[in-house]
Amino acid sequence: MITIQIDNTSKTPIYMQIYSYIRSEIESGKLKAGEKLPSKRAMSSHMNVSIVTIENAYAQLLAEGYINSRAGSGFYVEGIDIPLSEKESDKQAETTGEIKYNFSTSLADTSLFPFSVWAKLSRSTLNLRTTDLLNSCDFRGIPELRKEIAEYLHRFRGMNVSPERIVIGAGSEYLLCLIIQLLGRDMAYGVENPGYRRIYDIFSLNTSRVFPVPMDDKGASISAISGFGIDVIHVTPSHHFPLGITMPVTRRHELLKWAYSRSERYIIEDDCDCEFCYGSRPASPLFSLDQNNRVIYINTFTRTLAPSIRIGYMVLPENLARRFSDRLGFYSCTVPVFEQYTLASFMQEGHFERHINRIRKIYRQRRDTIINNIKSSSLGNITEISGEGSGLHIVLSFKNGISQNEIISSAAEAGVKIHGLTEYYSFPVSDIPDNSVIIGFSGIDSEQISEAFHSIMK
Amino acid sequence: MITIQIDNTSKTPIYMQIYSYIRSEIESGKLKAGEKLPSKRAMSSHMNVSIVTIENAYAQLLAEGYINSRAGSGFYVEGIDIPLSEKESDKQAETTGEIKYNFSTSLADTSLFPFSVWAKLSRSTLNLRTTDLLNSCDFRGIPELRKEIAEYLHRFRGMNVSPERIVIGAGSEYLLCLIIQLLGRDMAYGVENPGYRRIYDIFSLNTSRVFPVPMDDKGASISAISGFGIDVIHVTPSHHFPLGITMPVTRRHELLKWAYSRSERYIIEDDCDCEFCYGSRPASPLFSLDQNNRVIYINTFTRTLAPSIRIGYMVLPENLARRFSDRLGFYSCTVPVFEQYTLASFMQEGHFERHINRIRKIYRQRRDTIINNIKSSSLGNITEISGEGSGLHIVLSFKNGISQNEIISSAAEAGVKIHGLTEYYSFPVSDIPDNSVIIGFSGIDSEQISEAFHSIMK
Repeated sequence: MITIQIDNTSKTPIYMQIYSYIRSEIESGKLKAGEKLPSKRAMSSHMNVSIVTIENAYAQLLAEGYINSRAGSGFYVEGIDIPLSEKESDKQAETTGEIKYNFSTSLADTSLFPFSVWAKLSRSTLNLRTTDLLNSCDFRGIPELRKEIAEYLHRFRGMNVSPERIVIGAGSEYLLCLIIQLLGRDMAYGVENPGYRRIYDIFSLNTSRVFPVPMDDKGASISAISGFGIDVIHVTPSHHFPLGITMPVTRRHELLKWAYSRSERYIIEDDCDCEFCYGSRPASPLFSLDQNNRVIYINTFTRTLAPSIRIGYMVLPENLARRFSDRLGFYSCTVPVFEQYTLASFMQEGHFERHINRIRKIYRQRRDTIINNIKSSSLGNITEISGEGSGLHIVLSFKNGISQNEIISSAAEAGVKIHGLTEYYSFPVSDIPDNSVIIGFSGIDSEQISEAFHSIMK
Repeated sequence: MITIQIDNTSKTPIYMQIYSYIRSEIESGKLKAGEKLPSKRAMSSHMNVSIVTIENAYAQLLAEGYINSRAGSGFYVEGIDIPLSEKESDKQAETTGEIKYNFSTSLADTSLFPFSVWAKLSRSTLNLRTTDLLNSCDFRGIPELRKEIAEYLHRFRGMNVSPERIVIGAGSEYLLCLIIQLLGRDMAYGVENPGYRRIYDIFSLNTSRVFPVPMDDKGASISAISGFGIDVIHVTPSHHFPLGITMPVTRRHELLKWAYSRSERYIIEDDCDCEFCYGSRPASPLFSLDQNNRVIYINTFTRTLAPSIRIGYMVLPENLARRFSDRLGFYSCTVPVFEQYTLASFMQEGHFERHINRIRKIYRQRRDTIINNIKSSSLGNITEISGEGSGLHIVLSFKNGISQNEIISSAAEAGVKIHGLTEYYSFPVSDIPDNSVIIGFSGIDSEQISEAFHSIMK
């Protein structure tokens, strides 16, 4: 029987102590995949704690995929293959063979950035603004930039927002840390699984409870969100990473209905990649559909400009904008005033929208090149493409029984780097498809794409 | 008897629920100053919770100064006068009369900033770095800037640090949020009282337990730190704000001894204003005295360059540098690469040290002007000056029975803005001196200083 030292003087609830202990035993391999856990009753009497406490600990392990439950039989340790972050697995690949063609999704094509325009505006910001650049600004950022963002959101996303409700910060990671401070560390947070691992990590470092929420074909599963007792859900409705799902309007309304059914439930809408929608106009954001101040909208310039320009923003509903000003208004804005003025001019003079239109065309062409190469080759008959309506990657699923790792290895032999879908599951679920790879095109041009496919099909 | 709804299903410990309820009753004025709280025993039996739970709740209220304890008699509500932040009280002053001379400590004199040199370096960064400016950098910041900071710390502070252990971030507020994630939200944190209110607010928003630690004449009180069961203490040893204390080396060693006496105890050394030391060289930082990896060193360019340039840095001890890389290495560096290269050139070409030497002379002159004006006037006999050895403010205490508010009002009548010492107590303590004001000189030049004194003494 597992023996766990319980610290009764600790502020950490007992069920969390039990959960943490078992989790670390699983992660370190001391509890092996397939091993049966003691029954809740046996564990409760062995440890002399209530059965509810054991239930809570097991429920958390279950929610996070560390154990699975077999009806009538009990709880078993899951086979955990702690996923490497993309950077790490890139490093691994680099040591095993040379990458000639890189379809990783984390790459940025800096050659697309309109550097000379940006440099010109930077110079004129230096010449014209001088002392404006030295004084600290409003905690939300300079009004000039918030006004440009509000107008852009109106034209491009149909959102009616006052610049007063926009908060500028050093990237979406930082903004999420602020949102957690705003809503409270003790709320139950949900993140999409699969999804960006770093989103899970941020919530895990900053809150007491975070649940990986499984996806169905419309997005984050409403029944899981309700079942886990989640208070705040983080979603990417425009283009889910990595599954490529664009959340249909029915699910958007279901999500809002979930939020409305209790007070202090919120949705964090991360609208990343909304700019890269290739067919029709992008769907209305949850923020615009919301009638009850339950959606926080968040986006950045990482993909549309460059990763090194650390500027993100969020739009707060009215009630939270007030709360932010009251409780977090003492924080200084984390983006240098210089960058803010330069971006404000860039947007005000129309460069931003021209730039987005230009790169959207380029990315669409890359996507088309990938799809054409697949369809015109022998891959066409054995694969299925999904998530191609928007964003900077597609999902390619194989129907001929070949596994993800076999695909990745044979691509690697041809010098081609692709990632497997399973890498993006922060936590394992029972039915992860093992036949899919992610083809990103943010860091590879059309010519290289064709060469890569030629090299693979040889 | 107070009746408190306890939520047994909540993850918040019961003692914290009781603490929060009583605190809000005091803050809202429902429990009045001087009112006696029920005895621990009576409260425990009334609420049907253990006496230890009540003791913990009262201890927290006591630690934060919401209640006081009278030996043999019980616990009484303190007279809470929730302090306005400096900005708010500035606003208030503005509505009551015109400020001609402002001795606030939060001001910055942007006219001292070497703008043309900075602009020139910014332009050459744009010209020379181009694509370097677009790629995201190491999570700790660009190596060029970390190298310059390491060399500067060596020359100026006698610190031997590898650039590998430096982490650059968007200001000290952001860095504190990272430190809390690194050390854990459940540690007991201590902050100096009096001190910067925003430091208390950051810990209060991001951790479960923060204790305002009283100061004695050498700095944060060791007996209070031990008594509260603190794990991590935030201190400003170079020049305490607002008391102006430079922590003597004896206290530095006492603090280290405290840290060494248990594992996982840390000191956050905020070295702000170390650059403005007017007599001898500044004292050795705790970081250099530390032999056991217990000190995190933190500083920013806010006061030495400009508040709008959001660049701070911390130096981590070896063990924590590894832990940071493992657990928080996924975070992107929050400072734009452009600002980092510009600052690296500014330091590398020697501008930073020249600039600091220049402004140190200017600030020393301002300080001397203030002291001379005081000593040569009738103020000389009725006041005492302290905290004048370093930093950008002095403390002026009156020995003739006049109160802080009387001084502030009569200064205001002459168009002079000064702040009272009591404003900087995040939480009231029993013996706050009511006869002292803070004279800041970061935003007023020598000529204006003399005019202001002339205007007051008229």
